[in-house]
Amino acid sequence: MAVSLASTADQSLAAQMDALGRRARDAADQLANAPTAAKNRALLLAAAAIRADTAKILAANRRDLETATGRDMTAAMIDRLTLDGARIEAMAVGLEEVAALPDPVGIVEQVVTRPNGLRIEKVRVPLGVIGIIYESRPNVTADAAALCLKAGNAAILRGGSESAQSSAAILAALATGLEAAGLPTDAIQRVPTQDRAAVGILLTLDKYIDVIIPRGGKSLIQRVASESRIPVLKHLDGICHVYVDKAADIAKARAIILNAKLRRTGVCGAAETLLVDRPVGASHLVPMLNDLIAAGCEIRGDGATQALDTRVRPATAEDWSTEYLAPILSVRLVDGIDEAIAHIATYGSQHTESIVTEDAETAERFLARVDSAIVMHNASTQFADGGEFGMGAEIGISTGKLHARGPVGVAELTSYKYRVRGTGQIRP
Amino acid sequence: MAVSLASTADQSLAAQMDALGRRARDAADQLANAPTAAKNRALLLAAAAIRADTAKILAANRRDLETATGRDMTAAMIDRLTLDGARIEAMAVGLEEVAALPDPVGIVEQVVTRPNGLRIEKVRVPLGVIGIIYESRPNVTADAAALCLKAGNAAILRGGSESAQSSAAILAALATGLEAAGLPTDAIQRVPTQDRAAVGILLTLDKYIDVIIPRGGKSLIQRVASESRIPVLKHLDGICHVYVDKAADIAKARAIILNAKLRRTGVCGAAETLLVDRPVGASHLVPMLNDLIAAGCEIRGDGATQALDTRVRPATAEDWSTEYLAPILSVRLVDGIDEAIAHIATYGSQHTESIVTEDAETAERFLARVDSAIVMHNASTQFADGGEFGMGAEIGISTGKLHARGPVGVAELTSYKYRVRGTGQIRP
Repeated sequence: MAVSLASTADQSLAAQMDALGRRARDAADQLANAPTAAKNRALLLAAAAIRADTAKILAANRRDLETATGRDMTAAMIDRLTLDGARIEAMAVGLEEVAALPDPVGIVEQVVTRPNGLRIEKVRVPLGVIGIIYESRPNVTADAAALCLKAGNAAILRGGSESAQSSAAILAALATGLEAAGLPTDAIQRVPTQDRAAVGILLTLDKYIDVIIPRGGKSLIQRVASESRIPVLKHLDGICHVYVDKAADIAKARAIILNAKLRRTGVCGAAETLLVDRPVGASHLVPMLNDLIAAGCEIRGDGATQALDTRVRPATAEDWSTEYLAPILSVRLVDGIDEAIAHIATYGSQHTESIVTEDAETAERFLARVDSAIVMHNASTQFADGGEFGMGAEIGISTGKLHARGPVGVAELTSYKYRVRGTGQIRP
Repeated sequence: MAVSLASTADQSLAAQMDALGRRARDAADQLANAPTAAKNRALLLAAAAIRADTAKILAANRRDLETATGRDMTAAMIDRLTLDGARIEAMAVGLEEVAALPDPVGIVEQVVTRPNGLRIEKVRVPLGVIGIIYESRPNVTADAAALCLKAGNAAILRGGSESAQSSAAILAALATGLEAAGLPTDAIQRVPTQDRAAVGILLTLDKYIDVIIPRGGKSLIQRVASESRIPVLKHLDGICHVYVDKAADIAKARAIILNAKLRRTGVCGAAETLLVDRPVGASHLVPMLNDLIAAGCEIRGDGATQALDTRVRPATAEDWSTEYLAPILSVRLVDGIDEAIAHIATYGSQHTESIVTEDAETAERFLARVDSAIVMHNASTQFADGGEFGMGAEIGISTGKLHARGPVGVAELTSYKYRVRGTGQIRP
């Protein structure tokens, strides 16, 4: 009997998920040709609804926090889950900023008229239905949904169970905006259950969902990438490197590594490894270590680095491929740029790497040879961010090479199609 | 003992495949910054080597054909496997045409200078290592490898076992070209065994291979898509539709459907279903059926189509989602453009669809609402081809929406990265 009950429950969950997917697909078909003005109106009205619903959202968040207290959550997780008036206002402002971005849909990127008279246009269209799987950060509910909507996509959101009540309250405000703008409320849906099996089913709905975007820790992203039958836009680790060349300006090097490591340690563009050209170990690395340690950073170094400062702990093999997301930095002396490039190729995650040097030729070699989404010269890796790149909000930084690489903003949430206009042409 | 032997063989195959992947990755690193002139020189010298090796390639092909005779192969498969002087010359010309294409690598697509002085460039780079899995068509060995090389990628080729000898002989000619141009011969490699397990291993080598492109029948592509841990650029079926609207010019409609269905029936851009607006069933569909049947096409129609011509056989439910790749056409009368669009959304494969009409507004509605890689007005679906689009050779037509949609040419075999040039900027 138990088997039969479980099986009925499974069928019911599968049916529920199928219906969710179908509604999203129908909404996407409507959104694909929705005017920019309607999408922007929905975003602005959703921002207003979020402000008006502040008390409701805070109450829902308190219920989430009460439930979470009994669970095994770190202080950082609790912090990400917690909303206050300022964070809710930031969500509303975020929606308004997305409304102000240019609409990528309908942009004709190329036009060619062929000798036979066919006129062929390459035009931006929405991707369709986007599934977003994230951890317990309620603000992602608003941020991700806004980017999807602006690009004409329907979104299916699956946030962490700890933020379920907060997300539901935020979604209600978004629905208010959609409805008032005459757009289908199914354009933004949440997976209606916290049953973990629902994620597994979601990842098989390739007949409705065009792309899955996981946002969160490495284990979440790896699970999604290995289970999904739907293409995944992912970023795995951000193991970002700063390489200080023998021709580096010492003031720039000191400022850049301090900022790249410590401005915010929890972002994916934070530096995790510092590589220093051996000839400037004493002149450049020693003051950098002093700066970093004075600012509270733990240093794990190779033998040569340990020899320069007794406060340096030994780095293990694992350190070179670890994204600390914390005030810890691995440090190694290398024999010139080519060893730095080889180290990055071996241990890096193809996210963001920066060289500090005054030698233009060395800089160009680094920019050309390092195979990362973002390569920088004389700049902090913490600039790896859609906003800093001028694209407005982003949904993440892709370290894959297909479709989108680097910051994924509104434009990267679109595809294209070819429109061919003829006058009766047939192919010889 | 048998188990232990099998296990040793498995390990040896795994080690062999790993070494293959590593060599491809190393070659890709070298190719990424190879000058355009070197890549073109390799292609031109490979073309010369193919011509010089004609006798050797034909002898290898005869050995393949002798082996194939004992196997269960259709006449079409034998035809695709068979080489002659003209087909070898066409391969050589194909390599020369790819050499003449513009090099996409290094093109700066966007430049922005931020208020803080950072100069951010979006620049085209190769994808890296491309795995190509195809059936027994020896010419694909040259065609696919040439496109990969031009875009700066290393290629790992896995053709059907029936064409193994031919492919090896063609690969030897390509290697001659690479070597003479000073490029690594590992830039184009074949999987060195016909062991089917090798494909399974290939699809797990995500640490070396950036993208897998399957070329072949539906079952091959579905196997690859479901097994691969590496992103796949695929096209599944080309179930292409022609919709003849009530405002269609009858002469255009007759010429277009005849060409779209019968010019070549084995290409993915061939029409498989004709939808006709009910009011012009008698005036337009009847003469179209006469044309098609006179030209040897079998018609499978719905009830209304059968009522118009006794030679029409009944269409089953399966017919609407079948890619015949043969002189067979399914035909249905519909109530206007919206029913046509709904039919295409239900049964189509998002490849190529064409509307025949003189009504500009109806045409625009079709172009906007049909969610396919290529949407056409008053043109034959057989124009769905990279060459006809002006991109030169193509590796296939993608029906996915991520990365590349429609014809996949040299430009679509690249990715991009961001180059950021600063003067010491740190993020506030």
